[in-house]
Amino acid sequence: MPPSVSVFGAAGFTGALTARLLHRHPSFELRSLTARSDQGRHLDELYPQHRVPVLLEELDVDRHAEVDAAVVAYPHGAAAPLVAELRARGVRVVDLSADFRLHDAGVYGRWYREHQAPDLLPGALYGLPERYREQIRGADLVANPGCYPTATLLALAPLARAGLIADVVIDAKSGVSGAGRAPSEKTHFVSADENVGAYGVPAHRHIPEIEQELGALGADVRVTFVPHLVPLDQGELVSCYVTPTAGAPTDGDELAALYAEAYADEPFIELAEKPPGVRDVRETNICRISVHRDPRTGRVIVFGAIDNLWKGAASQAVQNLNLMFGLPEDEGIGPTRSRTAQVLA
Amino acid sequence: MPPSVSVFGAAGFTGALTARLLHRHPSFELRSLTARSDQGRHLDELYPQHRVPVLLEELDVDRHAEVDAAVVAYPHGAAAPLVAELRARGVRVVDLSADFRLHDAGVYGRWYREHQAPDLLPGALYGLPERYREQIRGADLVANPGCYPTATLLALAPLARAGLIADVVIDAKSGVSGAGRAPSEKTHFVSADENVGAYGVPAHRHIPEIEQELGALGADVRVTFVPHLVPLDQGELVSCYVTPTAGAPTDGDELAALYAEAYADEPFIELAEKPPGVRDVRETNICRISVHRDPRTGRVIVFGAIDNLWKGAASQAVQNLNLMFGLPEDEGIGPTRSRTAQVLA
Amino acid sequence: MPPSVSVFGAAGFTGALTARLLHRHPSFELRSLTARSDQGRHLDELYPQHRVPVLLEELDVDRHAEVDAAVVAYPHGAAAPLVAELRARGVRVVDLSADFRLHDAGVYGRWYREHQAPDLLPGALYGLPERYREQIRGADLVANPGCYPTATLLALAPLARAGLIADVVIDAKSGVSGAGRAPSEKTHFVSADENVGAYGVPAHRHIPEIEQELGALGADVRVTFVPHLVPLDQGELVSCYVTPTAGAPTDGDELAALYAEAYADEPFIELAEKPPGVRDVRETNICRISVHRDPRTGRVIVFGAIDNLWKGAASQAVQNLNLMFGLPEDEGIGPTRSRTAQVLA
Amino acid sequence: MPPSVSVFGAAGFTGALTARLLHRHPSFELRSLTARSDQGRHLDELYPQHRVPVLLEELDVDRHAEVDAAVVAYPHGAAAPLVAELRARGVRVVDLSADFRLHDAGVYGRWYREHQAPDLLPGALYGLPERYREQIRGADLVANPGCYPTATLLALAPLARAGLIADVVIDAKSGVSGAGRAPSEKTHFVSADENVGAYGVPAHRHIPEIEQELGALGADVRVTFVPHLVPLDQGELVSCYVTPTAGAPTDGDELAALYAEAYADEPFIELAEKPPGVRDVRETNICRISVHRDPRTGRVIVFGAIDNLWKGAASQAVQNLNLMFGLPEDEGIGPTRSRTAQVLA
Repeated sequence: MPPSVSVFGAAGFTGALTARLLHRHPSFELRSLTARSDQGRHLDELYPQHRVPVLLEELDVDRHAEVDAAVVAYPHGAAAPLVAELRARGVRVVDLSADFRLHDAGVYGRWYREHQAPDLLPGALYGLPERYREQIRGADLVANPGCYPTATLLALAPLARAGLIADVVIDAKSGVSGAGRAPSEKTHFVSADENVGAYGVPAHRHIPEIEQELGALGADVRVTFVPHLVPLDQGELVSCYVTPTAGAPTDGDELAALYAEAYADEPFIELAEKPPGVRDVRETNICRISVHRDPRTGRVIVFGAIDNLWKGAASQAVQNLNLMFGLPEDEGIGPTRSRTAQVLA
Repeated sequence: MPPSVSVFGAAGFTGALTARLLHRHPSFELRSLTARSDQGRHLDELYPQHRVPVLLEELDVDRHAEVDAAVVAYPHGAAAPLVAELRARGVRVVDLSADFRLHDAGVYGRWYREHQAPDLLPGALYGLPERYREQIRGADLVANPGCYPTATLLALAPLARAGLIADVVIDAKSGVSGAGRAPSEKTHFVSADENVGAYGVPAHRHIPEIEQELGALGADVRVTFVPHLVPLDQGELVSCYVTPTAGAPTDGDELAALYAEAYADEPFIELAEKPPGVRDVRETNICRISVHRDPRTGRVIVFGAIDNLWKGAASQAVQNLNLMFGLPEDEGIGPTRSRTAQVLA
Repeated sequence: MPPSVSVFGAAGFTGALTARLLHRHPSFELRSLTARSDQGRHLDELYPQHRVPVLLEELDVDRHAEVDAAVVAYPHGAAAPLVAELRARGVRVVDLSADFRLHDAGVYGRWYREHQAPDLLPGALYGLPERYREQIRGADLVANPGCYPTATLLALAPLARAGLIADVVIDAKSGVSGAGRAPSEKTHFVSADENVGAYGVPAHRHIPEIEQELGALGADVRVTFVPHLVPLDQGELVSCYVTPTAGAPTDGDELAALYAEAYADEPFIELAEKPPGVRDVRETNICRISVHRDPRTGRVIVFGAIDNLWKGAASQAVQNLNLMFGLPEDEGIGPTRSRTAQVLA
Repeated sequence: MPPSVSVFGAAGFTGALTARLLHRHPSFELRSLTARSDQGRHLDELYPQHRVPVLLEELDVDRHAEVDAAVVAYPHGAAAPLVAELRARGVRVVDLSADFRLHDAGVYGRWYREHQAPDLLPGALYGLPERYREQIRGADLVANPGCYPTATLLALAPLARAGLIADVVIDAKSGVSGAGRAPSEKTHFVSADENVGAYGVPAHRHIPEIEQELGALGADVRVTFVPHLVPLDQGELVSCYVTPTAGAPTDGDELAALYAEAYADEPFIELAEKPPGVRDVRETNICRISVHRDPRTGRVIVFGAIDNLWKGAASQAVQNLNLMFGLPEDEGIGPTRSRTAQVLA
């Protein structure tokens, strides 16, 4: 019998997409969907494109917790109490919020609010499979990474691990779906269309998450991170400008080799010679990366492109679930990388 | 001393644009702006692109009515009471809402709600300058046409006046600014982007306005009118499929001549050989029209393109004000049509 | 051993997508790709998003024809000679061009050019599975329908079959991918962005195809058909304005029942209460339809939305291949319609 | 009698827009337009939106040089010979190409090709009015700055002049019109739509221009500059990440004061508290700037937004012409900055 999963908070963009992926997943049974709005409607009324004819129900923890696993797609702060309840009932959880990404409740408190379930933090695992694959297999509480940290960490990990990052500026560009489903001035078509601008300046909440994980890789740096909104729906690009440490390779080929080796066996990491575009990875779980060295300045420039709703949220959650339940890592979230692209790099 | 004008309801898209046009108008003095939201902010905080450093104030009719003219940009239904107050104080009014477009309060009641100032209807003039130019000069209350009726009536008037319309289907396409400033699921970038679909089916509120004015031109028809939302900010296209009456010209050249004569002296009507695109008229007061005859079916096909916020609302309001105050009709709302385009047609 | 398939003309948008669908298809073996440009490159260099690491080769009919089936994605006129060569070698063909859609070589000659393989016309089958499913199973040469005819015929078939169409205006809107991969003024971003306009007025080449098939259904009408370009990449909407015959139902429920019955068992037809948007069907083989009756005019209004590259071309080609080789009709081109949408209609 | 001006190369985006601005300019007479394509057509056939009913002629230097001034909108390399001919006839020139921006022919040669008129370089003036206003008044050959350098230099000048720039990363985002009118894979709607990606990595040709002018301001740095293509037509944003020198202010207010003082009297520089969006400056000659200090890293972050076709090319050319002919600097290229925005900053 396939493991049963429920999605909590399925009316939002990421919850709904997770529901779609699980609804068609060969090895999970999508048991139920809860929502904080639109209760009583079917998901395919809200999102015809997902084709999930499942009812959105009001949360009834006793009933909805009778599953093997849960994906929680609640806002930051609101997730922790629900996750605590689910964990108390033995449900394995992938949480899409920021609530369990930061190991330190104090840091969380400074960037978000007082943590509602700090005792769960030690047991929570940061769910970036390319980094913590083995640990995720045995985890019961996985904190799905933020979209920006996902792209950034995948783009920078080989440099960080090799001790090559002295300083880094991360200029990120995201499609409007990253701002969520709630209508606002920012998400109004007339605001976003034919526009591009920065937001969250100078200190976006994804910074501590990026710094925590870069630090764990050995790069103890304070990052400059600035996100921009671009007029497209799904897609996210990080442009990383790295000031390398003294011993860094001064040669593009050495850099290419570093990345090729680091990602030799990664099904969802695609290396490219030319800078990737977000169209290249739309509706996939793939992160497409290119690395360049500027001989004039010595800087290393790395680009990473993902689909913010997929690898940046929903398909990465399913990738984590696949690992937690011993399934093939790419099941239900294909395609994997294309071989030519890999060879070319 | 230039006539003074206030804009009531300047926080919305059309009110704000009217304020911009009047702020830079050589012959009007923009006296004040009122708003139902965002009071206390300057208009250029909400709309930097308009560059109108004027305060948005809470309505104080006694004070704000001390002007020569008013542009009212309130929602349908909310406009009538304010217009009544302004008229009672002798202010000349251009009203952007639907409240004074329909002569018959009963028709208005069926499509909108009970009329709040029916006694003003007999004195209200339908503000389509290309149709009622002379009457507008002397009018004190001008009902600015809806955006769809503006494009449709300009596209069909020569045929209607010539008695050539037996039946007509109007398929309209509008940019998202037509839905107004209020954020909603419909105006969310992720809903409108990469999408196109009809709305207001089968009976949009602009129908009675179109039928009233076609009827006044001699075309007593029931129109089929269906608007669609397209992923762009400003611009509106009407595609009109006319089944002609028996005596209609069966020749494209005769049709072209009919239009060339009808619009020979119109500064803001541009005739084109090829179907117009809305880019051709973006941020102008111009309606660009092409007329075609399908020899296979005998149908006459007319396209009309406008900028829904300009000719469909704000710049047409200023065109009306120019007429009401004896100013050059194109003052402050240039450019006028290009001569080559006219010659080519 | 799975049937082998080659795609001829895989560098264009529809050929490349067909290659992607076949590359991941569980029951076909994608044998080779030919192209008239970009020979020597891999398809995933041109289209990273498709992830097909297969070489684009120069055509060598002797070699490339050693397959069970071929998809030909050549321009109109260029396809016929290649199709003739492939058929002469016994290869079963799905042709994406217009060359075998019209039964009458004379009609083809008037709208396109002199036909290059008229003797193949009697054996060619019009590949609209919802219409000719059984015949396609045994066919060796299937003419894949045009994108506009696909959406139009699916939207109108129930009315046509019931004898209810006296006259019809079809106003179509297509994304820019419909114009093909060749860069041109029309496909330049700066031309298409923030624009909407008609083209192919008054007589687009898809008209004879629509009329042939409506006629075969019993609706012997001359259609008015006008396509428009809208600023999006993939997606196509047809808005059909039907003047019904005398005996037509005057009731929306009867119309809904007519459609529900006609499409009760169709896996790729989705009926909706509200007008569909093209986002609803993006990257699917589904046609989503809504039908409405305007009580004021008596007109029946039908909307049909498809993805022009999928159901309008590539996935419909695979749907035809599935039928031709006795495979499940939806294999490799899921998802199928969502049940809730069906029930709601 | 107003000075006469011709535009050479008026069929491209920037030449055509320059023609539009001059055609409506109160104090210049637009004498003629030449083009290297589309000769014999009127400009308003190519660009209906510009409404310039003037013929595009084949170049006849003898005849077309009988003007007081010329704007040359030729590609890099092709401009120099024409500019030399025009200067030899005494015509005052604003050149939109890169040919006269770099003082050093050797540097030009490394980034472009061998210079065709190196003897003119000493007399050429870099046409950034906010920097070289007085010199431009007397210049006969003005090299109009590149779009990226314009935004970058305006964003960084106050810091550079104050000696505060130790290092800088410039991440730029441009709309597709920056790639010019020629259709290509890059400018195809389907390539650019729903996409964002870097290009010109690691060494774009605008780098030497930026470094030359930053150096002249006292900042002798090697810049990291990476442009990205974003899915919009007109608009350009530069995000500048400055590592400040030791003595730099550590306080946002001091930075704001620095900029406020530097740009106190600049009609086309708008300072804002929040990061600017390119919509804020669309179809204007304005550069909108915000400056921020990241207390965590000490970095100074400056954003500059322009319209690449206006301030980045055509309207800046007219601004230069205004200065050269002693006209009000903002004539024909309004509006100027809005006061509230200034006060807020």
